[in-house]
Amino acid sequence: MALKKGDEYVASLKSLGLEANVMGGRARDLPDHPLIAPSVCAVASTFDCAHREETRDLFRVQSSLSGEEINRFTHLHQSPEDLIKKVMMQRYCGNITACCFQRCVGLDAANAVFSVTYECDQKHRTSYHQRFREYWSRIQLEDLVVDGAMTDPKGDRGKRPKDQHDPDLFLRIVERKPAGVVVRGAKLHQTGMLNSHEMIVMPTTNMIQGEEDWAICFAIPTNTEGIKYIYGRQSSDTRKMEGSGRLDVGNPTFGGQEVMAVFEDVFVPKERIFLNGEIDLSVKLVERFAAYHRQSYGGCKVGVGDVLIGATALIARMNGVEGASHIRDKIVEMIHLNETMFACGIACSALWHQTKAGNYEVDMLLANVCKLNVTRFPFELARLATDIAGGLLGTMPSAKDIEDPIVGPYIKKYLAAVKGVDVVDRMKVLRLIENIVAGAGAVAYLVESVHGAGSPMAQRIMIGRQGDVNSKVDQVKRLLDIN
Amino acid sequence: MALKKGDEYVASLKSLGLEANVMGGRARDLPDHPLIAPSVCAVASTFDCAHREETRDLFRVQSSLSGEEINRFTHLHQSPEDLIKKVMMQRYCGNITACCFQRCVGLDAANAVFSVTYECDQKHRTSYHQRFREYWSRIQLEDLVVDGAMTDPKGDRGKRPKDQHDPDLFLRIVERKPAGVVVRGAKLHQTGMLNSHEMIVMPTTNMIQGEEDWAICFAIPTNTEGIKYIYGRQSSDTRKMEGSGRLDVGNPTFGGQEVMAVFEDVFVPKERIFLNGEIDLSVKLVERFAAYHRQSYGGCKVGVGDVLIGATALIARMNGVEGASHIRDKIVEMIHLNETMFACGIACSALWHQTKAGNYEVDMLLANVCKLNVTRFPFELARLATDIAGGLLGTMPSAKDIEDPIVGPYIKKYLAAVKGVDVVDRMKVLRLIENIVAGAGAVAYLVESVHGAGSPMAQRIMIGRQGDVNSKVDQVKRLLDIN
Amino acid sequence: MALKKGDEYVASLKSLGLEANVMGGRARDLPDHPLIAPSVCAVASTFDCAHREETRDLFRVQSSLSGEEINRFTHLHQSPEDLIKKVMMQRYCGNITACCFQRCVGLDAANAVFSVTYECDQKHRTSYHQRFREYWSRIQLEDLVVDGAMTDPKGDRGKRPKDQHDPDLFLRIVERKPAGVVVRGAKLHQTGMLNSHEMIVMPTTNMIQGEEDWAICFAIPTNTEGIKYIYGRQSSDTRKMEGSGRLDVGNPTFGGQEVMAVFEDVFVPKERIFLNGEIDLSVKLVERFAAYHRQSYGGCKVGVGDVLIGATALIARMNGVEGASHIRDKIVEMIHLNETMFACGIACSALWHQTKAGNYEVDMLLANVCKLNVTRFPFELARLATDIAGGLLGTMPSAKDIEDPIVGPYIKKYLAAVKGVDVVDRMKVLRLIENIVAGAGAVAYLVESVHGAGSPMAQRIMIGRQGDVNSKVDQVKRLLDIN
Amino acid sequence: MALKKGDEYVASLKSLGLEANVMGGRARDLPDHPLIAPSVCAVASTFDCAHREETRDLFRVQSSLSGEEINRFTHLHQSPEDLIKKVMMQRYCGNITACCFQRCVGLDAANAVFSVTYECDQKHRTSYHQRFREYWSRIQLEDLVVDGAMTDPKGDRGKRPKDQHDPDLFLRIVERKPAGVVVRGAKLHQTGMLNSHEMIVMPTTNMIQGEEDWAICFAIPTNTEGIKYIYGRQSSDTRKMEGSGRLDVGNPTFGGQEVMAVFEDVFVPKERIFLNGEIDLSVKLVERFAAYHRQSYGGCKVGVGDVLIGATALIARMNGVEGASHIRDKIVEMIHLNETMFACGIACSALWHQTKAGNYEVDMLLANVCKLNVTRFPFELARLATDIAGGLLGTMPSAKDIEDPIVGPYIKKYLAAVKGVDVVDRMKVLRLIENIVAGAGAVAYLVESVHGAGSPMAQRIMIGRQGDVNSKVDQVKRLLDIN
Repeated sequence: MALKKGDEYVASLKSLGLEANVMGGRARDLPDHPLIAPSVCAVASTFDCAHREETRDLFRVQSSLSGEEINRFTHLHQSPEDLIKKVMMQRYCGNITACCFQRCVGLDAANAVFSVTYECDQKHRTSYHQRFREYWSRIQLEDLVVDGAMTDPKGDRGKRPKDQHDPDLFLRIVERKPAGVVVRGAKLHQTGMLNSHEMIVMPTTNMIQGEEDWAICFAIPTNTEGIKYIYGRQSSDTRKMEGSGRLDVGNPTFGGQEVMAVFEDVFVPKERIFLNGEIDLSVKLVERFAAYHRQSYGGCKVGVGDVLIGATALIARMNGVEGASHIRDKIVEMIHLNETMFACGIACSALWHQTKAGNYEVDMLLANVCKLNVTRFPFELARLATDIAGGLLGTMPSAKDIEDPIVGPYIKKYLAAVKGVDVVDRMKVLRLIENIVAGAGAVAYLVESVHGAGSPMAQRIMIGRQGDVNSKVDQVKRLLDIN
Repeated sequence: MALKKGDEYVASLKSLGLEANVMGGRARDLPDHPLIAPSVCAVASTFDCAHREETRDLFRVQSSLSGEEINRFTHLHQSPEDLIKKVMMQRYCGNITACCFQRCVGLDAANAVFSVTYECDQKHRTSYHQRFREYWSRIQLEDLVVDGAMTDPKGDRGKRPKDQHDPDLFLRIVERKPAGVVVRGAKLHQTGMLNSHEMIVMPTTNMIQGEEDWAICFAIPTNTEGIKYIYGRQSSDTRKMEGSGRLDVGNPTFGGQEVMAVFEDVFVPKERIFLNGEIDLSVKLVERFAAYHRQSYGGCKVGVGDVLIGATALIARMNGVEGASHIRDKIVEMIHLNETMFACGIACSALWHQTKAGNYEVDMLLANVCKLNVTRFPFELARLATDIAGGLLGTMPSAKDIEDPIVGPYIKKYLAAVKGVDVVDRMKVLRLIENIVAGAGAVAYLVESVHGAGSPMAQRIMIGRQGDVNSKVDQVKRLLDIN
Repeated sequence: MALKKGDEYVASLKSLGLEANVMGGRARDLPDHPLIAPSVCAVASTFDCAHREETRDLFRVQSSLSGEEINRFTHLHQSPEDLIKKVMMQRYCGNITACCFQRCVGLDAANAVFSVTYECDQKHRTSYHQRFREYWSRIQLEDLVVDGAMTDPKGDRGKRPKDQHDPDLFLRIVERKPAGVVVRGAKLHQTGMLNSHEMIVMPTTNMIQGEEDWAICFAIPTNTEGIKYIYGRQSSDTRKMEGSGRLDVGNPTFGGQEVMAVFEDVFVPKERIFLNGEIDLSVKLVERFAAYHRQSYGGCKVGVGDVLIGATALIARMNGVEGASHIRDKIVEMIHLNETMFACGIACSALWHQTKAGNYEVDMLLANVCKLNVTRFPFELARLATDIAGGLLGTMPSAKDIEDPIVGPYIKKYLAAVKGVDVVDRMKVLRLIENIVAGAGAVAYLVESVHGAGSPMAQRIMIGRQGDVNSKVDQVKRLLDIN
Repeated sequence: MALKKGDEYVASLKSLGLEANVMGGRARDLPDHPLIAPSVCAVASTFDCAHREETRDLFRVQSSLSGEEINRFTHLHQSPEDLIKKVMMQRYCGNITACCFQRCVGLDAANAVFSVTYECDQKHRTSYHQRFREYWSRIQLEDLVVDGAMTDPKGDRGKRPKDQHDPDLFLRIVERKPAGVVVRGAKLHQTGMLNSHEMIVMPTTNMIQGEEDWAICFAIPTNTEGIKYIYGRQSSDTRKMEGSGRLDVGNPTFGGQEVMAVFEDVFVPKERIFLNGEIDLSVKLVERFAAYHRQSYGGCKVGVGDVLIGATALIARMNGVEGASHIRDKIVEMIHLNETMFACGIACSALWHQTKAGNYEVDMLLANVCKLNVTRFPFELARLATDIAGGLLGTMPSAKDIEDPIVGPYIKKYLAAVKGVDVVDRMKVLRLIENIVAGAGAVAYLVESVHGAGSPMAQRIMIGRQGDVNSKVDQVKRLLDIN
């Protein structure tokens, strides 16, 4: 049966026995760790939604590989409608979790690897595509979470992979064996890797002659020997560990997660390799994964934006200013910006094309336009939310003080706003906004919006390439009768 | 046969015998008037495209009313694909004409009237829908140009139609007769009305009790007795009349047109009336027409944007700075903004719904988001184009001076740029940019982008209404466990 | 001797014996508390600068009250140059502390109270001015830190002070005695109050008839009986308490501080009262204090901006991309925005006027323009810094992991960038940027930039009032010969 | 007597007998030419203001050369106050003329040449400074208008002056004679040159070895033999020639002017040469002139902005929407942006320094920041004005139609707005706004705001150079204890 429930997912995750270094110590039983548990909950919600009445139609789809009903988060897109539903699903998940739910990256990687392996086989007479179909069939049937690992440490950004003073700064093959290869290197910014069963590792950039050892794509279980995980800090992360006073954490249930993964001479068996030295395909893989993932941001961040807008409207209501014209105007502006990002996510889906391998791909130009807007608008939404929420965002007492017999009553007296509004509820809303604009949630909503799926300059380069300036110039020449 | 060619359109237009006051004089033979001819050419291109090899598939479609092959500019949208193709077609037309091609407004009006009359009949037992179907069948079969006339003079913006000191400031019924009604009033900002065979007149805002006389929708020929046309001035309009030296006009072939139409007790026969006092439907008609027309701006202005980008890239190339990083960056920014508007036009089409009457309608929220972006980004594109084009935009000698035996050679000597570029070609490109950012073209590209299909505040109000803030607030309450 | 050194200041602060509720517990010896100590250091720097060779001229000035040499942070501005030097001094302090140094608010309050009391005396025959002169002479001579307390809780923002369901939601007089008054209420967002010797309490808005009890201004020592302090949380605040691994704190030495102060029936002796029911003066006091304080933001935040720009340029250098054109362009943009804010701070100083009381005041319009820019540009600077700094801002391992024998070496291997750059140095720079854009520093740099000295709408209202639209309209009428 | 009146200026201008090619014909009596007369009026206002009661103090100043009372437009700045008063005077002139009044460029050139010649003499033992003092004394005493001519045609922007295919594309010395030099080349974008008695010609960029012939600075009368003038077109320029119906011209009295000046082997006598091959000084001259002129934009464009704001507020009032919150908000935004530019103009003046030659110079960094803001904000002001003014900006009938017996009454009936407002007055205001945002006035307000005193990239380069990134980096290193 292909469709796990959330708790089944958590159980399966625990059985992997993953370990990590977390803030100076060695941690086991990660899904129970207070820093990590909220991020597991976020992933779990992608499973539960496939079982809830109101969302099961959106989250379930028939597999093109097996014909089975599977979770859409493992689907190879079979129609334009699939591309649009993906964005809808992502917006929904962002909306209910108010954070990064971590499961898109594997979905986007799979769709890219699917078509790239097909084209590689056609060109180089390799047999990666069939391998990948078999691999991914299992992922779908077992309803697994797969991380897509792309970003290398990159060292000196002014130098190519092969020219780094330490060649491991881009993950590479250090040994080729009959049964597989041995790889060394690291992948940074791995959102949710510790909540995944598997990972697909991809090169981070186009590769050129002499860089065959870096042009490698493969999939392995996250608990493969030789992989070390080092947990990444987030703003206000330790609030998750403060025990009582959950209020201060902002987002009471969900959260994101980032990890640095080190590959210390990890063995990858042959049947898990999907690219191995075919440098001409590396750039295709990067661009396609990026395009799908840039589309994703038109859904997930919009969903978080919905929460930020809702929280902002709610605090305005609690403060008694909901009807003020400048407040209404700012909320309209927030909606406008949020929906503009959404429109880009939908539009790159609506202008689909089918790949040679048969799955569906987004319009590359608009996917990049989508993400470039996502690198900008959330900061403006954050500014407007900060404006409406008021100074308490940065000055509100700890939740622990509410229970203090001396100062607790003062907090309740003096943080009261519109009559009838519970002060603690008001504080919850403020802490949620703080979480998104300047706390742990800001890692996903602001930092990741800038850098996830590629930094702004990466999108600009693609827009320059895809924007077809020459045909525009030609049209002007025709209009003006210029040779 | 439903599909006229451009010259057949022009001939049919001439046969209407329209007259207008143009800059202080009475003009006949309007399609030959040098001020007006470019705008006729722009409309004519919408006919010719249905006959050109490379565009006929996009511009032709099967009528849902007659089954005949018709021009898409008269089509009632029958599928999501139709909505997207409409935007594509508009972008194409904007791209080849670099101006407003004037034919969308009737298309958008027809699709709105089609569904509103259906719902009116259902509610009020009227029979407008069948009337409109018959009327529009003829439009399709004869391939006519129809203007959509909505904007009333509005007088004191702080007062409702019925409270104006002069009740005619909103067009209204002044007499009801057995065979029809007599109307009085005016419609402003009528883009291309003088190039149309017919017009659909609609109310400009929602109407309330006591305003039944203003809740009127009907169609009449443009040469109906009692209608007076007063031509609107545009920046640099008289360059079109300077005869030789066409270079200075900027856009050598095409142009837009605006007119003020006065209805001096015009008789409208019964069978041409599609709304008559049903005040509850007036707001629906306004909102739907506006939504379709706001979608349109995500196509047509993007097409003009393509020209502006192309001209900017071309002048950069002619100036020898095409490769400079800041130039490339600004052109990428122009493309990004232009494609963001396009994405909104596509997205509101992709999130379609079918009306009760059977035709397809865009997503209202995203259509308004689309237009609101169009009220902003063209100004930024204009600024960037001005930046790259250089100061000659505002200081270049007249084309007539090029032929002057004394100064002509100096112009050619000193306005030379990169070797091999013809100076006159360079001047053409500069004049085209000037036309769009500060000349006659700016009326369509800047002023109309702000006010066409409703001013920015109209979009903001709709976004506020459609943005569903309450469901966002509810989601936050669920997340935070707030009652 | 008027000029304390930093350590003398700290000693004097300790002698006050202040206590506060801090995150659920009662804290004494505040200046030694790890959460609070960095903020004490920031204030102390304002003392030390008056003794350092390179800054003593800027920080020292002759008192207009006593003729003694005093710290400029206690000065009543005696010349246009004083106003400009104030901004220079603030930029300098922001630059060396990278945070809020907390000492401007009292300076700005004093200059406002100085002129308002003078005018009150003239109008109402009160004797506040002489009282204030005496009070402030002592402040100058003892070189004390004075907080300016303005912001009331405000409850329902839709209601006036007298109409709140709880009248204490704006601080007010609850009893009038021969020797003084008793006040009750609270002041929120009190930056640095716990690091101050004294506070000047002011009304938060204009008062109208019936609100005489709320129109009160006075000064009292911070350790006055009946005042309760509740410490405000900041993003990532507890990193200051993590002991070793100071690296993660971002700003290794300095920090800000916010507190909520409750006035539980506090007695204010007569000779410390500077306004008592003169409602017509309350709005003047608010506007003047706000104007001075909005000027301040054109200095202090610019100084923090300098740090953010410097850190961004440094990380670009460490990453090997300093010379990339898009990086240079973004840094230029950061400088441009930062200097625009500075220009506004300088300009409102340069267009000074002298008050009736003799001290110098900034131009109100430009001071509000200054602050309104400060509510916007830091978010853009933060976005650009985030862009250049890269994803590690949100994913970097804890400093504690660097010393881990297993993962420490991996961190050093894989976070290496340009050859020769120490990895720990690189991490320091990233943590500093994180601190300012999404950590404890963001409270001052982003939240306070929006709300400190009044929220954006407050500035907009003042700009509308001061912008003199009518004289612009009149000039247009003259130009167009319109009556 | 040093202070001409406006009509004396016009008379003196006529006596020069200048001729120009204007739109294909040879024109004499330029000050009477309908295209040119408005620009003469604008310059004349700078003379009249020195005689009007309310402005004489601002416009008159004592000469540092002769001790005589002179017009400030010819003054060498002798104090910080002079620098600020210059900006004030420019704002005033912009405000009363609503256009470019053309007289700053010579003022800015003179102040730059004054200090550069001094330093050149010190370094190269030349004697330019004394020459220039004598020359400029006469300018002051005769109250002459002097154009500053800098911008060369530049040909291929990717090549240096000496590497152009035509060496004349940068103005240069083609022959050196005992009594002087012969120059050839052209200067573009010469605002108001035809309204000037004299011109100071300067190099347009830094010069390097081998470009000594291009490193030339001199002054000559505008009616010097060998100079050819070719008039530049502006948007809607011919409206000035339409005779009756002055209403359509928008700005009824004033206007700008641009000309291309060709130097066909023009002889420059020795005593008028102020730089001749000293390449190391050319960059200083360019930077200083640019800095003064970038300061100027913080005055003149702000003055035009005042008019645009006033006209926008007036049309809102006439339309009955003055009190709508979104209208008020947009006008506040216009004021805010306008005053931000002004603040930059004032600030670069307030942070003055004295040159070695003794006159006062603005802060270079802030002067560049000032101008960079001017390349942006006017477009936003134009967008907001367009928004509030409404669609009539692009569709309003010709003024000639108002008098038409048939349609005139309709225009008056249907363009009526708030009761009591004269329709013609309303049309005047709309035409004025059109003039500034998309007509002849847009050349000065938009195109010139981008390119005058150097294009945006020129300012960015200077900001990068002057922004002192290294000291910011050093400060960060100190804070973080990084070597």
